[in-house]
Amino acid sequence: MRPSPPSETFPAQTPAAAQIFTIVLSHGPLTRAEIARRAALSPAAVTKAVRPLIETGYLLEDIDEEHRRVLGRPANPVRVDGDRALFLGVKVTGDEIIAVLTDLCCRIRVARHIPLGDRQPGGVLATLSDLVLELRTAAEEFGAPVKGMGVAVSGDVDRAEGMVRYSPFLDWRDVPLANLAAMTTGLPVTVDNDVRALTVAEQWFGAGVGLSDFALVTVGAGIGCGLVVGGRVVSGAHGVAGEIGHLSLDPAGPPCHCGNRGCVEAIASDSAIVRDVRAATGIDVADAAEALELAHRGDAGAREVYARAGAAIGRAIGSVVNLLGPERVIISGEGLAAYDLFAERIRDTFAASAFGAAARCDVRTRPLPFEEWARGAAATAIQSFIRSDPPKE
Amino acid sequence: MRPSPPSETFPAQTPAAAQIFTIVLSHGPLTRAEIARRAALSPAAVTKAVRPLIETGYLLEDIDEEHRRVLGRPANPVRVDGDRALFLGVKVTGDEIIAVLTDLCCRIRVARHIPLGDRQPGGVLATLSDLVLELRTAAEEFGAPVKGMGVAVSGDVDRAEGMVRYSPFLDWRDVPLANLAAMTTGLPVTVDNDVRALTVAEQWFGAGVGLSDFALVTVGAGIGCGLVVGGRVVSGAHGVAGEIGHLSLDPAGPPCHCGNRGCVEAIASDSAIVRDVRAATGIDVADAAEALELAHRGDAGAREVYARAGAAIGRAIGSVVNLLGPERVIISGEGLAAYDLFAERIRDTFAASAFGAAARCDVRTRPLPFEEWARGAAATAIQSFIRSDPPKE
Repeated sequence: MRPSPPSETFPAQTPAAAQIFTIVLSHGPLTRAEIARRAALSPAAVTKAVRPLIETGYLLEDIDEEHRRVLGRPANPVRVDGDRALFLGVKVTGDEIIAVLTDLCCRIRVARHIPLGDRQPGGVLATLSDLVLELRTAAEEFGAPVKGMGVAVSGDVDRAEGMVRYSPFLDWRDVPLANLAAMTTGLPVTVDNDVRALTVAEQWFGAGVGLSDFALVTVGAGIGCGLVVGGRVVSGAHGVAGEIGHLSLDPAGPPCHCGNRGCVEAIASDSAIVRDVRAATGIDVADAAEALELAHRGDAGAREVYARAGAAIGRAIGSVVNLLGPERVIISGEGLAAYDLFAERIRDTFAASAFGAAARCDVRTRPLPFEEWARGAAATAIQSFIRSDPPKE
Repeated sequence: MRPSPPSETFPAQTPAAAQIFTIVLSHGPLTRAEIARRAALSPAAVTKAVRPLIETGYLLEDIDEEHRRVLGRPANPVRVDGDRALFLGVKVTGDEIIAVLTDLCCRIRVARHIPLGDRQPGGVLATLSDLVLELRTAAEEFGAPVKGMGVAVSGDVDRAEGMVRYSPFLDWRDVPLANLAAMTTGLPVTVDNDVRALTVAEQWFGAGVGLSDFALVTVGAGIGCGLVVGGRVVSGAHGVAGEIGHLSLDPAGPPCHCGNRGCVEAIASDSAIVRDVRAATGIDVADAAEALELAHRGDAGAREVYARAGAAIGRAIGSVVNLLGPERVIISGEGLAAYDLFAERIRDTFAASAFGAAARCDVRTRPLPFEEWARGAAATAIQSFIRSDPPKE
């Protein structure tokens, strides 16, 4: 690996080159012929795009003289050199900041958690700066440049503008987080909705690899959804997409913080479950963990609350599947801790609400701790780097 | 235009060539430079792909010697020669078959309506054969070959397999319509869901031109939805997508033919409105037209039924917008006749259910009579022809 100035940009000058690199990142090592097939490009175009990526050290060629001799043109598989660049990924929750240092292959090298005292933008940026400094110091031993940072926040986030338009858990409105974080850290910063960021990581490295259409549904403090349609993460014309938590399921249902009634989030989020468990049992559970414990001890009222939450999630997944017909729905989030309590109702309700062949969709669970969400943020930074998105610096 | 054998295939050998032709079809006349910009391809690649399309007469170049002299490379705009090929488009409803003969630019040349006596597949195919014969005779005067037929049917349709899996209005299950119609007519046949077919026409020639993300919501006998995400019509991994009619809005709502309760279709379809107007007014209206007349005469009970239907449609559009964040939602369908009765409620309910910036979505109406739906079917046949989909013959 050759050293390079931090300002050096990625040598993929065309969308096709960025596409090729992403394919190798996700599926490599691959031969040029395999890349051409997956990208629907000519082998000549792939050979041309791969050359500068090898010359600058972003791709490595596994030398195999036998292959080379047999086929006449370079037939050795190429793969991404993970050591070539480093990235930071940060997930901001209402309680803490989780940050990871990853390599170019999005493998976590270092992870840090830090409690969040002050949720105001200024306080979050100060905590973030400390973490970034710590991770950049840790990065020095790996001898590669840190090329960018991704920050993942729940709520209505406009990635193109780098703007957090509305985050209920942080109580933020219209915070230009990408610019602020870029000024504080000196790094190119990508800001995205946390579930969309996690969806990018799942698409590239997780349960979405090789699927052109899938949904990731996250259950916990909020109910979120990342959508991949035709191979692309849906981001919405105005930055809003995947708001499964605000699908309206019942006009007579409980009020939601968004102003409507009967939203999925008003029935199945942690705070909704705590509220309903208190009402059903008369026991003043402090939080989702206590509500869960009560249900796990067999309290019938608490168990019924989880079953109702499961029915709401199942109906919401049915809506996603009826509209988009994905190949797979991945259920994740910290709410998976309660999965034994609502799994059956999710499955039954989903099966009942799916229309026709849409019910064939593969619905599965996958535990993804918050470090994976921070890794998702790093994946968005890698994505911006590969695509040479205009940096917020 | 040179004559050609009917078996002649389209000379676009690569996905890029099909993409280029589609861009010219939708946006032409365009110069090669303009095509290159829209397709994100190099001008050289466009020039190479355009050449065989001009040589075989599918594209025409508008000769303009001044342009040619100024810029050094062919700068004349190219456009599709609509006279080069003809297509048939057929929409099958529960009551009639509507068929059109279009040119390659999907302009309707001849249109025919015929009542449907027998809804069994055999009866529909017999009626269809008569219509096809009539339209092929009419086609002779245009001197171009009929290159394919599209058939649009409501319900769960698998285009890739050419299979009508389930059509409630025809009461069909697992009918291999593409193969049957191809055997009867000798034409390559494309079968698609009717709303998806209309969506293709809207994307290429209608209110969706230039938009990468939009939804078409159709209101009438059923409630349907076509979705374009990232520039592509969503078809679902298992052939089901856009089933907005079976979004579940109210667990205590009226039963739906799909087996659930409170689906949009169980509240806002023609038959649901007729049922509810009868119940609200005690007047035994015969059909949607009579229900509408009653409401237009000012009957408060009937008007309230339409308002409730409008609220259901508005909430359903809110769900689509919260999940996908389209730039535009186009409302159409024969139910537009009642639009004055539910427009306000659609808008209010949509605005209340849209989350954050998603509410900026442009929601508009557009009357599209059944001939336009048949034209949509022709558009799918043109699409199959351009993409050289394996024919069902």
